[in-house]
This record gives sequence, C-alpha cells and structure tokens, in this order.
Amino acid sequence: MNGAESLIATLVNNGVRMCFTNPGTSEMHFVAALDEVEGMRSVLCLFEGVVSGAADGYARMTGVPAATLLHLGPGLGNALANIHNAQKGHVPMVNIVGDHATYHLQYDAPLTSDIVGIAGPVSHWVHSSAAAEAIAKDAAEAVRQAGIGRIATLVLPADVSWGDNPGGAEAAVSVAGPAPVAAERLQQALAMLQSGKRTAIMLGGREISGEVTLLASRIGVATGARILTETFPTRVRRGAGTGMLERLPYLAELALDSLKDLEQLILVGADSPVSFFAYPDLASAIAPDGCEQLELAGPDEDIEVALETLLESLDAVDAVPQVYPLELPDLPVGALDANAVALSLAHFLPEDAIVVDEGITAGMACFPLTANAQPHDWLNQTGGSIGWGLPAAVGAALACPERKVICLEGDGSAMYTIQALWTMAREHLDITVVLFNNRKYSILELEFLRTGARGGKPGPKAASSLDIGNPDMDFVAMARGMGVSASCAATAEEFNQQLEAALQGRGPYLIDARIPPLALG
Amino acid sequence: MNGAESLIATLVNNGVRMCFTNPGTSEMHFVAALDEVEGMRSVLCLFEGVVSGAADGYARMTGVPAATLLHLGPGLGNALANIHNAQKGHVPMVNIVGDHATYHLQYDAPLTSDIVGIAGPVSHWVHSSAAAEAIAKDAAEAVRQAGIGRIATLVLPADVSWGDNPGGAEAAVSVAGPAPVAAERLQQALAMLQSGKRTAIMLGGREISGEVTLLASRIGVATGARILTETFPTRVRRGAGTGMLERLPYLAELALDSLKDLEQLILVGADSPVSFFAYPDLASAIAPDGCEQLELAGPDEDIEVALETLLESLDAVDAVPQVYPLELPDLPVGALDANAVALSLAHFLPEDAIVVDEGITAGMACFPLTANAQPHDWLNQTGGSIGWGLPAAVGAALACPERKVICLEGDGSAMYTIQALWTMAREHLDITVVLFNNRKYSILELEFLRTGARGGKPGPKAASSLDIGNPDMDFVAMARGMGVSASCAATAEEFNQQLEAALQGRGPYLIDARIPPLALG
Repeated sequence: MNGAESLIATLVNNGVRMCFTNPGTSEMHFVAALDEVEGMRSVLCLFEGVVSGAADGYARMTGVPAATLLHLGPGLGNALANIHNAQKGHVPMVNIVGDHATYHLQYDAPLTSDIVGIAGPVSHWVHSSAAAEAIAKDAAEAVRQAGIGRIATLVLPADVSWGDNPGGAEAAVSVAGPAPVAAERLQQALAMLQSGKRTAIMLGGREISGEVTLLASRIGVATGARILTETFPTRVRRGAGTGMLERLPYLAELALDSLKDLEQLILVGADSPVSFFAYPDLASAIAPDGCEQLELAGPDEDIEVALETLLESLDAVDAVPQVYPLELPDLPVGALDANAVALSLAHFLPEDAIVVDEGITAGMACFPLTANAQPHDWLNQTGGSIGWGLPAAVGAALACPERKVICLEGDGSAMYTIQALWTMAREHLDITVVLFNNRKYSILELEFLRTGARGGKPGPKAASSLDIGNPDMDFVAMARGMGVSASCAATAEEFNQQLEAALQGRGPYLIDARIPPLALG
Repeated sequence: MNGAESLIATLVNNGVRMCFTNPGTSEMHFVAALDEVEGMRSVLCLFEGVVSGAADGYARMTGVPAATLLHLGPGLGNALANIHNAQKGHVPMVNIVGDHATYHLQYDAPLTSDIVGIAGPVSHWVHSSAAAEAIAKDAAEAVRQAGIGRIATLVLPADVSWGDNPGGAEAAVSVAGPAPVAAERLQQALAMLQSGKRTAIMLGGREISGEVTLLASRIGVATGARILTETFPTRVRRGAGTGMLERLPYLAELALDSLKDLEQLILVGADSPVSFFAYPDLASAIAPDGCEQLELAGPDEDIEVALETLLESLDAVDAVPQVYPLELPDLPVGALDANAVALSLAHFLPEDAIVVDEGITAGMACFPLTANAQPHDWLNQTGGSIGWGLPAAVGAALACPERKVICLEGDGSAMYTIQALWTMAREHLDITVVLFNNRKYSILELEFLRTGARGGKPGPKAASSLDIGNPDMDFVAMARGMGVSASCAATAEEFNQQLEAALQGRGPYLIDARIPPLALG
C-alpha cells in the first residue's frame, strides 16, 4: 500500500468518507488511490473555495469532518476564506494539501510556497508529513485534532504519497466528544438565574438543536431569563415546535439597545457578543458595562446535558417551553421585493428543509418570517467571508440527500464562488437557490452610511464601487451555462410559482429574484 | 486629511495610479477617499483573485505597480494565488489589506484573522500600520519595497483609515531601478562564451524586451551559444523582427534532453532550470550534472546593459542577429482543434497585440506557431496557479488601452476566476478571449500518466476527477450572463470568422472554441 492509499484508508477507518477535491499534479497519487481504497466518496469542484465551503456544509449536517484535497499553497489560498468561515463556526475539517516531493522543495519550482505558513492562521493544527511510513499515523492524528470542531491541515508531499507504506492504514483513533461542563460553572449559572437580576442566556456553538431550544425555553419560562442566540449561529433548529429564541441583531446599534438593561449574561456555546465591525463612536463590546458574564459552556462542551442539569437544579423539569406554532403566511402578490420572497419561502418551506443563508441584506426578512414555518435547520455565515452559501449548500445536500436544501444567496456574494453551481448539476443535488438580484452591494451601501465615511455620502467613485449593476448580471444564463436549470422572477406571483415548482421537483434549480436594492436613508 | 486620503495621495505621488478593488466595511473610508483625492483610478472586481491577477497584468505592461484593495484576511486569501503568480514572475504589487480598527482586534470578531501571517508567504514585505499619522510614510515605504519586482503588503486598520493625519501625504520616494551587473560576473560570462565549450544563455526575469532578444541573438551568432528562455518568461517580445529564441520545454523529459549536452549555462534574469513538478525516477534539476552555471544577472539587475557590455567585450557589435521573418500561415479549414486555433491566431494576430497565455495543453501550439506573426508581447503564467489568465488580461488591457489583448484560456483554468469577464464588460476592455473548451483537465490527464500513478491508468473515480465535461459548460451563456458578447466555434471556418471579427471590433469578446481533448498514449 502506498502512502496515499494508507492515508485514504485511515481517513475512512476514522469515519471521514467524503472528500471534496480540486487536485493538481502533486496530488495524482492521491487521486489514483481513490480507486484502490473502498469507502471514500470524491466530489470534484472547479474552485477551491467551493471545496472548503462544501466541506463546511457537509460537516455541519453530519457532525463528521469531510476531507478537502487541495493543490499546494495557492490551492490552499483559494480555499482559505471558507476554511476561515468553518473555523469561526467551530466546524471540523481535515484539509489535505499536496506539496512537491520533499527532495524537490530545495529547487524552488514555480509552485513552491510556504504551505505550513499559509495554513497556520486558519488551522488549529498543521503538520507536514515527512515520509510515507508516517502518513497514516499523521492522518489519524489529523482526524483526532479536527475532533468535533477544529481545522486540521495535513501537508502531503508527492513522494510521501507515492512512497511505500508497509505499515498500511491506521485503525480508528478516539475522537473526543463534547466535554462535560464543570459543576462549578453550573453552580454559578444557577445562582445567576436565581438572583432575580435581569439575565439572558445566549446560545451558540456548533449546533442549537431542537432539544436545546426547548430546554433553554423551559429555563427561560422557569426563571424569567431571556433566551437569545448569537447573531449567526452555525446551525439552529427552527420553525413549528421549536423553542422560542431571540436573535441578537446584526447592527451593533440595535444589538447594544437590545442588551442595554442586562445585568447578567450566561454564554452557552456562544462568545461574548461583539460588534461585527468597528465604527467610529460605537462600542465594540455589545453587553453593557457592568453586566456580569459567565461562559457556562464552550462550543466543545456538552450544551444539552448542561441545560438539562440546570433545569433539574432549578427544579423546573415541568416548565412548559414556549414553542412556535405552525403559522404559514398567505402568498404575497404584486411587485417582488425581499419581504415577498420571505413570505413565499415561509409559505412553501418543506418540512425538515435545510436553509443555507447568505442572503445578506436581501435575506434579512427570511429569518424572522420563517419562525412559524415547518420545522427546519438554518445554517448561517459564521466568519463573515462571503462566497460561502452556494458551496455550503453543496455540502449540506451531499450530507442529507433526502432533505431539500434552500440556499438564500446575494448576487454579490454568489459571485465569489459561483462555480458551485456546476457541482450542484454534476451531482444532481436537490438544492433550490434563491438568488437575490438587487444589482448592488447593498450591505456596503449600508455600511458606508454606518461608518460615516465622507459624511455617509459616497462620491461617484465610491458609489460605483458599491454598484454591481453595470453590467447587470444574468444569473439564469450563468446557471444554465453550468448545467443548472433556472428562471427569473420579477413579480411575487412569478416567484411563488417558480419556488413551488422548484421545491416540488428534485435537483438543482436557481431562481433569479429581481428585487429592488435596500432602501436607505 | 484622514489616513485613507493621505494613503491614496501618497500612492499617487509615487506613481501608483490604478487600484483594483473588492472592498468591505473595513475599507469604506478608503473607498470614500477615492473621491477626495485626485489621480487614482479604481476598478471594481467581483472576486479578489481577479483583483490580484489584474494588478499583475497591469504591472507587467506598465512596469509600475498597481494597488489592490482587499477585505481582511479572507479577502487576502482569495487574492493569494495570483499574488503568488506575480511574486514568482518578479512583478511589483502593492496590496492594501483592510483590517478591523486596532482597538477592535482584541474582541475576536468574526472577520478577525492573522492578516500578517497570511500575507507573509506571498510578500517580500508586510507591515501593519499602527496609526493614521504613520500611514503615509508606510505607504511610501510599501511602494519603495515593491520596487520593480516585489510584493509589498500593507495592512490598513479601519481607525488608521478614518483617523486624522495632520502630516498629509508623502512625496515621491526613490524607487531603485535595475542594478548594474557586477563586472566580475561579466568577466566570467565572457570567459565562458570564449571557452569553446557547449554553452547556452537562458533569458528570464521581468521582461525579455525586443532589444534583449536582438542583443542575445547577436551574442549567440558571435559565439555559437544557444539562446534559450525560461519555459514561462514573465513577458517576452516576439514575432517578426525579434531575435530568435529557443523556449525550454515544459515537460522535464524533453527539457532534460534539450540541455543534456550542455557544458555551460549563463543565466540572465532566469533561475537555474528545474522540473515544474517532481516525478518518480526523474531528476528535479534540468541542467546536466557537471554543467557549469553562472547567474550573470538576477531579475532585479540591468539585463539589457549587461548584454550590451558583453557584446562589446566580445568585439561583436557588428554581429547580425537572427530574427524571425514575417510569415503568416494560411487559414486552417475543417475540424477545429488546438492546432487550427493556433494557425488562425498566427494569421490574424494584430501588430503590437498582447497575448496572455493560460491555454495550458490546448494553447501549447499557439506559442511556436506565432513566432513569425506580427510583433507582439506574450505574457506567461509564472507561478503555476491557474486562474491567472482572464484577470491578467483585464490588467493588461487597462495598462495599454490602445493595444489589443488576446487571452488564451483553458476551460478548467477559466473557472477559477471567471468573474473577470464582468470587469471586462464593465470597463469595455478590448480583450478577445479564446476559450479552449475541451471538457477535460487535459493537463492532469497528461500528468497522471507522467507520475505513473496506478500504472498511468486512472480508475473510474480518478477519471471522473479529471473530466469537467459532465455537465458540459457553456461559456457563451456564462459570458453573456456577465455582459460579454460571445459565440461558439466548432469548425476552423467558424473560428476564423469569429476571431477576425473580434479582432477587428473593439471591446470584450469570448470565443468558446470547441476542440477535442489532448490525445494521449
């Protein structure tokens, strides 16, 4: 068995059975080994940002890391933005980055680069394998390091790949599950909840399951604490039958206002809330000065058991959670806008759908308006680097082939990784893309205002930099060019009809939803 | 004047007058400042790989760096592959990477990352500006560090951008030009050329000008030395009236054979030749053992003056160079293939065109067959990271609006930075894209064979990983979706007609050239 074969077999033995690939010459022995070792599915992507975003979406829905296969430092560079997003979302990933043969590096060939240096800032663990004999052990260690929520990057020199590994594959290693929450912190949380002070629980972490929403709601009912989530939780169960949650607003102005009376904040998988960006004359930290904060559970800890324990300690196991009833809105009529899209989505959302949300400004209405829709999972953009949505939808659809995936995508953000459409077509993935086409970087028009640059009034060059409507993009043409069926909707009626048809059908479909840009000022 | 304004004014004072941008919130004050300061042109790109590739193409054609404007670590990550290519090609670039406000970094907001760490592996110089008062000096230093062929990356925190800089802009700094070649090395080269041994001169560096081709050819005529170029020179003048050059083959097998009898190799701007990749049982170094090598001039040194001096020392100023006569091939007929495209290109190539070559396997015939075409400049892929061609064409066209740019692009490589088409349409750039659509990663099919993986016979999974024809991509649809006129050619006659029309017209045009994949074995 050569190094590459022992690597793949070790990954398979450790439960890593999906590899998103964009290989090059230095990875050819890995590619060849895919046919020699049973059990690894390989999905080709045309750009590495699709590779890493798909690995993120896949791991969010399976809880198990996917592998990526990347071509040297530049391939890793192309994947970096979506690795960043996964890292910020506590999503596990095992990156395999091919390198030149170890003896070839000294010659500084054109594709030579400092791969370990590039990987470092977006990896919890980086290792370059030194020999074919070591690669299986290194691969097992990579899976162990990726664990349940970390980024492990393993550099695979070509000669390590093609060299003989007489030891063969490694068996499964033990991957640590969520750690129990320390009793002391549970005691502190209990005291805070019983203190009578104005208290909120903020949920975050890798996943806010339906059970977690119900547990948290029961604690809220029993104690009067507000139950919040981070602005962009990695994965959250929502819709009819789930526990009611407040979402922390994106805009720091609103978030500050939302928390201004808080005396205590209990963080459960979430970080202490901060403004997404800095603005002149606006605080970075969102919780008020003097608000006592407790990190009850980190994202690697067992949130569900912690909340159960807390509920028992509160003697409140009988508390009845506040749950969202099923309430579907009527279908919108008339001109199409962001709100109409949200109403249509809420109306038609299939049970157990997965919503991948990179709708940015245009998608903002979708989240609140689907609270009473059929139960579903919602995946958010966790690291702020756009170009995540379409790839993440690819990964989610491969993870859950029996579930409908709906990708809410901005026109601007779509264009960072538009190549994902091709993989959707190639793999016949059951994804409906709702493409908000407002011909603007609307979020940046808003942010320009918020930063107060030039008194909030963009001059001609600045305005041009925020305007992606010249030329207009035709996403129907682009989608069809990559093998994805598509249509354009300019009215609510057209959108309703197209969305219903797309959700009833199977396979990838893109709706180019022509909506007006965000109205500002 | 705020920090951003003083930064832009300093760049303008230092000759940097083109900024390729893909900004985000943290760069809004920079964007605003574009309207406050005279002299900086700003060109919006939809993806950062287009930004950096365009900056590369622009600098190759002007000799002056462009600025890039990138959004934090992930934006830099997206730009990394084409920064790598520029770095390997000795092309200057000034990257401005926005960051959170300095005081905001401690909060680890979602977009926080180690920008300096990401930049390091692809930059000769990295600096994070500490205060608005320092940014103008830092910008001047960035331009100085970029010099004539290096990558300078300046991190610009948001508060440095919006803070007041009472000192205002910096005046022009002195940027070092090409350094003179040491007399001792000229003496050594002279001795080698007069030794009677089998000798070659290999040209490389930032630019092989028409004058350099003629000087080198005259030295060859006078001494019997072979005149070679690197496989992928950054920029080379070619066609009728230029000095004859041999190009070192890409395939190491052929390159080794080409140089096997060499006793002496004089490197002029070029690195010692190495195999692009490592292969089992193939040498990495291309020059034979025992071949004496002299680095006469590095890429930062004055190649033209060195060759003139050498010619004088050889007492050979009257040597008549071997030049390519103008010889245009007849137009091809019948089925369209890579060779027919090359013949048509050679026939129609306009005088003083700029050819940007990322045609990979399908483009291989274009280079030799255009040797006798009208004089033109040829830009090569210098770092091996594909996705460079379309963006580099954007930059070259903006640098030289009066010259026709022809971009030879593979279907696989096009898909890394296909968003460049939109900027071509937006800026009405005079670019003809010849898109070799063979529905394969043909280079990887070839490389699979060369690496000997699985006996050179891909299994089904490997074969699928190299096949991008499922689904077929329709580049006409994609181009039109981004505002670029396009047509499809399936015969030589159709291609001839479309190429002629595109070259006679102005503005961007894409020809989807349907050719068979590379025939192997």
